Amino acid sequence: MNKTFALAIHGGAGTLAKENMTTDQRREHEAALEHALSTGIAILQKGGNSLDAVEAAVISLEDCPLFNAGKGSVFTRKGDHEMDAAIMDGRTLKAGAIGGITRIKNPIRLARTVMDQGEYAFLAGEKALQLALDYRLPLEDPTYFYTSMRYAQWQQLQTTPAKEKGFGTVGAVAMDHNGHLAAATSTGGLVNKAYGRLGDSCVIGGGTYANNATCAISCTGDGEAFIRAVAAYDVSCLIEYSQMPLEDACQKVLNKVASLGGAGGLIAIHRSGGIVMPFNSEGMYRACRDTSGHITVGIF
Amino acid sequence: MNKTFALAIHGGAGTLAKENMTTDQRREHEAALEHALSTGIAILQKGGNSLDAVEAAVISLEDCPLFNAGKGSVFTRKGDHEMDAAIMDGRTLKAGAIGGITRIKNPIRLARTVMDQGEYAFLAGEKALQLALDYRLPLEDPTYFYTSMRYAQWQQLQTTPAKEKGFGTVGAVAMDHNGHLAAATSTGGLVNKAYGRLGDSCVIGGGTYANNATCAISCTGDGEAFIRAVAAYDVSCLIEYSQMPLEDACQKVLNKVASLGGAGGLIAIHRSGGIVMPFNSEGMYRACRDTSGHITVGIF
Repeated sequence: MNKTFALAIHGGAGTLAKENMTTDQRREHEAALEHALSTGIAILQKGGNSLDAVEAAVISLEDCPLFNAGKGSVFTRKGDHEMDAAIMDGRTLKAGAIGGITRIKNPIRLARTVMDQGEYAFLAGEKALQLALDYRLPLEDPTYFYTSMRYAQWQQLQTTPAKEKGFGTVGAVAMDHNGHLAAATSTGGLVNKAYGRLGDSCVIGGGTYANNATCAISCTGDGEAFIRAVAAYDVSCLIEYSQMPLEDACQKVLNKVASLGGAGGLIAIHRSGGIVMPFNSEGMYRACRDTSGHITVGIF
Repeated sequence: MNKTFALAIHGGAGTLAKENMTTDQRREHEAALEHALSTGIAILQKGGNSLDAVEAAVISLEDCPLFNAGKGSVFTRKGDHEMDAAIMDGRTLKAGAIGGITRIKNPIRLARTVMDQGEYAFLAGEKALQLALDYRLPLEDPTYFYTSMRYAQWQQLQTTPAKEKGFGTVGAVAMDHNGHLAAATSTGGLVNKAYGRLGDSCVIGGGTYANNATCAISCTGDGEAFIRAVAAYDVSCLIEYSQMPLEDACQKVLNKVASLGGAGGLIAIHRSGGIVMPFNSEGMYRACRDTSGHITVGIF
């Protein structure tokens, strides 16, 4: 068993303004990132696989009210919460994705269930709830997803046009001691969204992708631009077909996303274990543990 | 104005068995393909753009009960019809996709509306119906989507395990006289599907992709494998990053889909106007008009 492993997580690139963040808020976010990172590290350290690590790290972030996923999901135009998530196994290229789901405490667990169940790869809307019921995944009442910060953000939008885009996402990528890669992403989507809007998080190749031959990627930002750029898979293709270094590939893809009008960022882990966490937004909540054991936590 | 244009269409690669098809059935399918092709050609011939041509060709196929899309959509496990569709503009990389929608006569028109409206790129589930209402797109009662062939197919599945996979899709790719590419795909999805299952048709990069710099693609087959392979965008990347000829790129991608357990096919048009329509299933309903004006119609 090779003792080398690595993990990176993000808590989204939306609604960040350095001048508005107090020192306490900053510490609170950093602590939440550290907690999610250590949750994933604990699994990898004892020989667990990358899929379990990214799922556990994302569950930790979904359970935290600070990030736009799970409990902290933003409000839709109708005042409820619709969540998207996806997970992908770089070893088998198996994937599970869910879009526009309600009431499920941990959307990434439903995405994992879709992947493990194997009949389908992508479920959306109210009907996906039945799979969660069949597998007895924890559900929550709508009140669970109420947070005063998200409610205030949504209320403000009803009277004042948005100055900042209200997106945000959580995600994780990992390489385990066997060199297997995995990626997971989860989000409450775009604040005030309507019409059953899905973002890139649940689009395999758009916001989530993993392949042992190349890399694992989780994106955050303007979902529409990441979908149109097929951003996550583009990073993989630049590595596989153009032999581009991971950092250059990620930068090229973020430039392409920007050319489509999109801001955001991504976390990526190379098949060699190298991690990059670039963004072209004002900030991106992020943390990683590299193959040498060094830990980084950052916001701006 | 360059007078060269080209168009290819498909009516899906599922549920085809050469020995079960009568001469009359074969002629009926060929006539429907010819009708859809000529609908698209008429637009391109008078200088119309590729987006309008692929949309019109797909509407023709959606209105035909023979193919699994629009009127001819398969039955879900619950006995209703849930449709997916997507359209993409190779000039701007704008895209519109919808998944798991009901009652809309022409799902591709809703996908086009999503793209033109521009706020979102991907809608799913019952909530997407509101956009169709806002834009006064034609709706139909559930009875419109009843066809005796699909009903018999679905009924048989309730008692006998499927011998053949009950998928099928329609799609179109085109290059107009300005050299702009476009792709469109529409489907009723997998027969007897449950849990709000979406397929690759509505996944930008999965079953649908267009980019003036490379190609336009519409796929049909085992949706889950095409999603995991990010098949449509993979063809584009092999052209862009590996300088692979279109035919080789499509074959490589179908081989990858097959390695993931998936059968099916795709239609592709290169930025130079060249068309290929490969498949690894028993057949694929297909037709094309190449840049020289030559018309091909095929099933097996």
